[in-house]
Amino acid sequence: MNQATLKQSDTFCLCPRFEHTFSILGKKWNGLIIEVLLHEGSQRFKDLAASIDRCSDRVLCERLKELEQEGIVNRNTYPGESRVDYSLTEQGRDLAPLMVAVHDWSNKWC
Amino acid sequence: MNQATLKQSDTFCLCPRFEHTFSILGKKWNGLIIEVLLHEGSQRFKDLAASIDRCSDRVLCERLKELEQEGIVNRNTYPGESRVDYSLTEQGRDLAPLMVAVHDWSNKWC
Repeated sequence: MNQATLKQSDTFCLCPRFEHTFSILGKKWNGLIIEVLLHEGSQRFKDLAASIDRCSDRVLCERLKELEQEGIVNRNTYPGESRVDYSLTEQGRDLAPLMVAVHDWSNKWC
Repeated sequence: MNQATLKQSDTFCLCPRFEHTFSILGKKWNGLIIEVLLHEGSQRFKDLAASIDRCSDRVLCERLKELEQEGIVNRNTYPGESRVDYSLTEQGRDLAPLMVAVHDWSNKWC
């Protein structure tokens, strides 16, 4: 690797997590799940399912597990209560400006 | 679909192209190819290959074709010259604010 390449590797993002996150966000329904949680705050499964009514419960469940593993979504349980709900983690909420940028771009080019 | 769902479908982005674009950007090397073209302008294949030296020529070639099909990259030929180079289309250049948002996010969370 020569000096110029080193310089560029330093300048340009080679973070594998960057590509990984994009691939997660590119999965059908994930962007919409994040949008709903950003705008509506904590949601129970049935509320999320009502908002994203074209996504089957099975797929919604899979996606939520995946987003939880990625550190984007929290699955919240409450001691002594059967209630479970879902919210964005700090890392997930921090996707807001990125979602705005994607909206701006897709509104213009879709 | 009830009124509330309709309202939300209207508010939240269901654009398939939105998810498709995320999935394209999530493919290994594509983000980096866009970054290099954003920062360096038109590039010949060998210059791109030198900047992105961990990506094989075969894969780089595939990615450029794909980005061209997506309307993000132009493959420029010059009449009477054997020169070929690659640049971002207007749609591709318009990804700049999105790339900044991704950088900010990944610098914080990677």
